[in-house]
Amino acid sequence: MDPDTVAKAFVEHYYNLFDMNRVGLSSLYQDASMLTFEGQKTQGSQNIVAKLTALPFQQCKHHITTVDCQPSGPAGGMLVFVSGNLQLSGEQHALKFSQVFLKSSILSSMTMWH
Amino acid sequence: MDPDTVAKAFVEHYYNLFDMNRVGLSSLYQDASMLTFEGQKTQGSQNIVAKLTALPFQQCKHHITTVDCQPSGPAGGMLVFVSGNLQLSGEQHALKFSQVFLKSSILSSMTMWH
Repeated sequence: MDPDTVAKAFVEHYYNLFDMNRVGLSSLYQDASMLTFEGQKTQGSQNIVAKLTALPFQQCKHHITTVDCQPSGPAGGMLVFVSGNLQLSGEQHALKFSQVFLKSSILSSMTMWH
Repeated sequence: MDPDTVAKAFVEHYYNLFDMNRVGLSSLYQDASMLTFEGQKTQGSQNIVAKLTALPFQQCKHHITTVDCQPSGPAGGMLVFVSGNLQLSGEQHALKFSQVFLKSSILSSMTMWH
């Protein structure tokens, strides 16, 4: 599979988990993983999932607009840049977001709302 | 210097070059560098600068809104996520952008307009 296809499959898997089974994201992050969410840093799979499940919304749906991918490092790592909309249950307007994933032996990510 | 300060200084330097002396960005990228700009991939310092100087605007000013930084890799590498506005000369409204920098022994970056 080419890297762009791998990146898209990964991103779909990530947001499906986020929207349907947020605690399941713990399977993607590791102890050395870092999450930066709206400027706040969190480290480690358990803390990251605690942060994401404590966000002030439950039902949500991510709609992906763009996925860009670059290879990173020698061992099949990749840098993935996603933009899209986040629809919250009961809200009329969607939030715009972008998120960066750096996936090597560990996964880290950074999210920003616009 | 702490990593956030380094990241902010780097980002300011990058956009000062972009706005004042775009060809000078060649000093930051290397032959192995990749640029993804609005979904289009370019590799190598010379090609990257050719791409950036061929953008359909000359005078511009980047205004940075957020800079987030994570350490990446063993050798002082960093992952930097920037959001901001791009004011083009003669345009009333600014463009929103976000850009990712992955800086290790080489610099790569990805830019998206919103």
